Amino acid sequence: MSVEPDENWSVIEGAFDIRNNRHYEGLLAIGSGPLQQRACLEEGLGDDPQDREYLRRMGNVSVETFPQFKGRYGTYLPGVTGPHPTCGDELINLPAIHGLVLYAGQERLDMERSRIADYRRWLDLRCGRLHRELTWQTQRGAILRVRFERFISAQRRHVMALRVRVRHLHGPHVELRFVSPLDADVRTNGFDHFERISFTGEHEPITVEVRTNGGDTVAGAALVTCEPPVPRAVATERRWAAVSGTHLLEPGRTLTLCKYAGLVSSRHVSGPPVDAARNLVWTAAAAGFDQLAEESDAVWKGRWELTDVEIVGDPQSEHALRVGLYHLLRAAVEGDPRVAIDPRGYSGEAYCGRYFWDTEIFMLPLFLYTRPEVGRTLASFRIESLAGARRNAARYGYPGARYAWESNPAGDEHCPNWQYADHEIHVTADVAWGLWHAYRAGPDPRFLVRISEALAEMARYWAQRVTYCPQRDAYELLGVMGPDEYTLFSRNNAYTNYMTARALKVTREAWELLQQADADAAARLGQSLRLSASELALFERIAEKLRRPFDAARNLVLQADDFFTLERFDFQRWWPDRSRPLGACVSQERLYRSQVLKQADVLLLMALLPEEFSHEQVLTAYQTYTPLTCHDSSLSRCVHALVAARLDLFDEALQMWDESVRLDLRPPAAAEGVHAGCAGGNWQATVFGFAGLRSLMESDVLRLDPHLPPGWSALRFPLVWHGQPLRVCVETDRVIIEHRGSHPLEACVLGQRQQLMPNRRHEFA
Amino acid sequence: MSVEPDENWSVIEGAFDIRNNRHYEGLLAIGSGPLQQRACLEEGLGDDPQDREYLRRMGNVSVETFPQFKGRYGTYLPGVTGPHPTCGDELINLPAIHGLVLYAGQERLDMERSRIADYRRWLDLRCGRLHRELTWQTQRGAILRVRFERFISAQRRHVMALRVRVRHLHGPHVELRFVSPLDADVRTNGFDHFERISFTGEHEPITVEVRTNGGDTVAGAALVTCEPPVPRAVATERRWAAVSGTHLLEPGRTLTLCKYAGLVSSRHVSGPPVDAARNLVWTAAAAGFDQLAEESDAVWKGRWELTDVEIVGDPQSEHALRVGLYHLLRAAVEGDPRVAIDPRGYSGEAYCGRYFWDTEIFMLPLFLYTRPEVGRTLASFRIESLAGARRNAARYGYPGARYAWESNPAGDEHCPNWQYADHEIHVTADVAWGLWHAYRAGPDPRFLVRISEALAEMARYWAQRVTYCPQRDAYELLGVMGPDEYTLFSRNNAYTNYMTARALKVTREAWELLQQADADAAARLGQSLRLSASELALFERIAEKLRRPFDAARNLVLQADDFFTLERFDFQRWWPDRSRPLGACVSQERLYRSQVLKQADVLLLMALLPEEFSHEQVLTAYQTYTPLTCHDSSLSRCVHALVAARLDLFDEALQMWDESVRLDLRPPAAAEGVHAGCAGGNWQATVFGFAGLRSLMESDVLRLDPHLPPGWSALRFPLVWHGQPLRVCVETDRVIIEHRGSHPLEACVLGQRQQLMPNRRHEFA
Repeated sequence: MSVEPDENWSVIEGAFDIRNNRHYEGLLAIGSGPLQQRACLEEGLGDDPQDREYLRRMGNVSVETFPQFKGRYGTYLPGVTGPHPTCGDELINLPAIHGLVLYAGQERLDMERSRIADYRRWLDLRCGRLHRELTWQTQRGAILRVRFERFISAQRRHVMALRVRVRHLHGPHVELRFVSPLDADVRTNGFDHFERISFTGEHEPITVEVRTNGGDTVAGAALVTCEPPVPRAVATERRWAAVSGTHLLEPGRTLTLCKYAGLVSSRHVSGPPVDAARNLVWTAAAAGFDQLAEESDAVWKGRWELTDVEIVGDPQSEHALRVGLYHLLRAAVEGDPRVAIDPRGYSGEAYCGRYFWDTEIFMLPLFLYTRPEVGRTLASFRIESLAGARRNAARYGYPGARYAWESNPAGDEHCPNWQYADHEIHVTADVAWGLWHAYRAGPDPRFLVRISEALAEMARYWAQRVTYCPQRDAYELLGVMGPDEYTLFSRNNAYTNYMTARALKVTREAWELLQQADADAAARLGQSLRLSASELALFERIAEKLRRPFDAARNLVLQADDFFTLERFDFQRWWPDRSRPLGACVSQERLYRSQVLKQADVLLLMALLPEEFSHEQVLTAYQTYTPLTCHDSSLSRCVHALVAARLDLFDEALQMWDESVRLDLRPPAAAEGVHAGCAGGNWQATVFGFAGLRSLMESDVLRLDPHLPPGWSALRFPLVWHGQPLRVCVETDRVIIEHRGSHPLEACVLGQRQQLMPNRRHEFA
Repeated sequence: MSVEPDENWSVIEGAFDIRNNRHYEGLLAIGSGPLQQRACLEEGLGDDPQDREYLRRMGNVSVETFPQFKGRYGTYLPGVTGPHPTCGDELINLPAIHGLVLYAGQERLDMERSRIADYRRWLDLRCGRLHRELTWQTQRGAILRVRFERFISAQRRHVMALRVRVRHLHGPHVELRFVSPLDADVRTNGFDHFERISFTGEHEPITVEVRTNGGDTVAGAALVTCEPPVPRAVATERRWAAVSGTHLLEPGRTLTLCKYAGLVSSRHVSGPPVDAARNLVWTAAAAGFDQLAEESDAVWKGRWELTDVEIVGDPQSEHALRVGLYHLLRAAVEGDPRVAIDPRGYSGEAYCGRYFWDTEIFMLPLFLYTRPEVGRTLASFRIESLAGARRNAARYGYPGARYAWESNPAGDEHCPNWQYADHEIHVTADVAWGLWHAYRAGPDPRFLVRISEALAEMARYWAQRVTYCPQRDAYELLGVMGPDEYTLFSRNNAYTNYMTARALKVTREAWELLQQADADAAARLGQSLRLSASELALFERIAEKLRRPFDAARNLVLQADDFFTLERFDFQRWWPDRSRPLGACVSQERLYRSQVLKQADVLLLMALLPEEFSHEQVLTAYQTYTPLTCHDSSLSRCVHALVAARLDLFDEALQMWDESVRLDLRPPAAAEGVHAGCAGGNWQATVFGFAGLRSLMESDVLRLDPHLPPGWSALRFPLVWHGQPLRVCVETDRVIIEHRGSHPLEACVLGQRQQLMPNRRHEFA
């Protein structure tokens, strides 16, 4: 009956260590898109209240110290947010539905206090199922084998199923009691978002309904089935309700408990959420655990077929990469463009569930090149939240649309740190990039109309944000923070300027396409926006004359005009302990005035726009900036890996890649949630770096110039190019592409141009 | 019996307007140094609870919007501070002792609801006594004349006295009830700082004792005397206690109530504060209101003799200037170097009662040139808090001492906004300036030892804070915010660099003096600090090579090397409504990247160090920077007035001076407290600008080069120069100096050198 974990497809915790508990809660998080849950222990922990209130002050999250909980419940419905007094509008940690507490007589199963052997917990990545097995020797000498299995259905996406089997192996009989709670006594970043809480509990399913301070109604329901049957009682407190039952378990016998729980909000259903939750649970229970699992597994199977990457010769790296892909697949809310993916992929409170630039730049490509329709939904969040971007622009005194550095679902800025909110304006260029990338991955006339509006509005913002410098006859962007957040305030950050110029060009391109494709739609939209041809021409002029900071003598793309006026930074002196982030060792004041990079900045630009730079320029930039980069951001090393791979600097590429891809595996990295942007960046390092794919933003033709590192004998992955599904296999001395679609494709692989034909296998040597 | 206000010496509120109530609470604030009180109405207001809790988020205080209270209690003991969850360690608003509520039968005297005529309230600046008179027509038709007089004794500095006389003029007799509370149901910036509150109240005086979250115990006591006698009762609630009594007042009769109250903390007494408070009140009551008033008035008289400035020909300006001087005299805690003066002079919560640079640069000179011993106490705060400055330096990774941008009494940084705390480092140079200025005003060998230590420690900080630039062979200060807080992040802010160079030179000077004066003390101190001669030499080398940003082509002192790379600011477009601060009309993001100044920066430098710049350079700077300056800071216009006066630009000087000196008189300017720095700056504009005195930092010889503006026929003020008391009278065509001291003085007035002889009157034409 026991299931053995497949090492390649599982994340395994072999021994319980309370210090790593929060890490595994994040690392093993489960979810279905609209319902997300940290992998908290079903029975909870003693002395670990979830109602502690405190005032979080967000700063540099990379170096922030979080309160010392043993565990942190996390139950999220993406989109269900509410205001926090210091953090802004944040994803609310909703009533916990995962709980199931076991007692043997008076003794509570407790991972810290109970006598436990043969422990193992693992997440099956293949299907997002969480397993836990342990042998519990009770104080009275009974030996119980306990197995937990839990998942959130990928098919019935608001349903969680939990099965617990307790087998009595040896010893005296046990009065086994279970308590299955719905627990609304939770907080988010120390704050209580619930304005009203009510329970029903005469009959199962018991339900909880909360009214959030964001104005949503959220309802949870749960029922428990028992085999053999057990009579049950319901207890309700102010913020907590539970079903409980007691069964006399005799040696050799097994008690099987199944908890079916659902969580839904007024954002998801039109009727009363509590009715919907109740129905979800009834029908789930009627189907039963096994059928629910089968349905859900089938969905996951389909996802993996379109996503998984094989690294032949390096199974550990393959596994590590897969963990990140799992979290991206879990976190994407397919079919719902009202939300995106937060930097922790809905597995922790670190970034308050808000949406950053890494959606577009780091996470989106995975989806665009594997399941473009999912990618387009993700990108469409920015269209859905355009009204918020307009409000942000107006709030700063600009026309058009200015995307938030930390966006809530409505698109409004909620970053509590003004230096990022005010100055990290590249996010707006990144959004333009994402929208155009999504359009390129699956051209669609209706989507073109929608992004044309957003692009024009962004361009209007830029046209007012730039400063014309007559001495240089150039437009400039002053007072900017680039991706490198350790440089506070730059004149002409290269990344920002190039990406902005690109956004302005893309705007012109989109409108030309729209005019060709549907002149009426273009005219109507142009009229409603009062967009003139001269305004479009202005956008292009600004794009052309926007300064690209460059030191010709050194052939060096400057991070910013003034970057090298900052103080040279003595890494030896200030960073003796490399196990800690640099930002935790040195004051922000020193970082801001020093030549030190938190993360890839110019190199990211070169990763995204390789066609703009010569090989020598990339090499010079790599050699110049790498020694100055501390990688305090999880988005940094994957970019260095990508660029180093393209430069055939394999040692450095692999070193960066190894650290990046394993980031979340090492405690306590995932304690406040996994790093979803890093996961997406790792995929890009693999596909754009090692496999050498050129992106749709650079090339219409499928272009592959692999840089397979020594030790990797092959890299295999599925790919969708212009709507055509392919399978790519990069080997040391050849590339094989199987065309599984219906239309021919132009390709240029290893410098060889070929037409890829449907249902054919093409080999390039 | 009625006292008539002297218009030249009073601030008069002729009619009550609830919208201006908070403004007058600040503008008419009373205090004695260690006890400070806003001029809140004794009876309070209906529907104006003082226990509202909210989370203040400090930002740019000049443009902050405060919660809409009708009135804001404010009762402060400088030094009694405690942590606020978002604002840092702040001055605590302590239990209110000022209250006295009157009832006629069931009807409560209420400025908004009662029928009131012949209202007048005024503050007598001469003695810090607050008067209020009104005629109250009760609902039952009685006409009562009510007079309030209240002051905090300048002699018994923890005692407040209040006298209320109710004269029955006409109509039916009145059951007059009074309630005299001690009210601990108050908050500070929306936060409750009291961890424990207890009352005693069987016998008068009733007392309140609170334990603050800063660890202090604060006790208040109060008793009421009545003429004719009235039986009294005591009522106590959780956070409030009061004595009340009822008297049948008949037509033609008067009831006189005197409330004697005291407030003292464990910082002020060694025994139990509640005993001290009780004793204070007993002895005050025994002395009686009139004797207390007489004692206190005598102290005030002495202060004014040494302080008051006469502007013959412009009585309104004279009056406005006097209001500011009053507040500085009130706020200075004579004899206690453990505290300084906060920017609102202990009359409001705006700056949380913390200490800024304006203590040294704006407020200190008034004291140094009128009562040097009071000035030295004020300057000594930085010596007392040197340990905190050392902690700040260490926290940022520096050796030595780095003074806090917003210092609490212990010297620790509590500025909640990192951009000021991290980058506005000129405060440390300003502190050096203040210490040396205080030493120059009254050389004292013990003081020299103490400041030598502080100066050396500050110099050590600077030696690590500078960056050596080999291309320029110069030291630089990178990542700096100057006094102009609308420029975020400068390379070599002129003010900061010049003042730092001066501080380093002064350090060398102090140590040389110390070695000459007391070689043993110098050796001991040098040893304990491990200060070597080569380190002192390094300080001087840095001072010499610290860059002074300058554009030779324009003969212009640059605010910073990169100031003119910012965007030119279109004042017409962005600031159409000049009645609002610019910062309230334009986003900080735009301000930070634009050529716009919040306040005088280079001009302040030129005001402080006139000897460093030619007349042409000052004129060029004035003409360049004035059009770019929005004066959002209250510290700006007084500096422009000073510099314009020295340039004989009288129209501009007077316009700036008029606006500056009247700033607090216009509602709602003083609502969150008066502007104490501005008051000190106005005095400097008068004495250093119009009267043309050169400071002790520039000149050993008393030097006066007056710039008396048209319309002013004379300017008369007392002055202390090198310990010698003088009276100066500047007239249109002559200067008269009376020497009232004991030692001859060198002077150079209107270019004429003379020796000033004791007890002689010297005239310069």
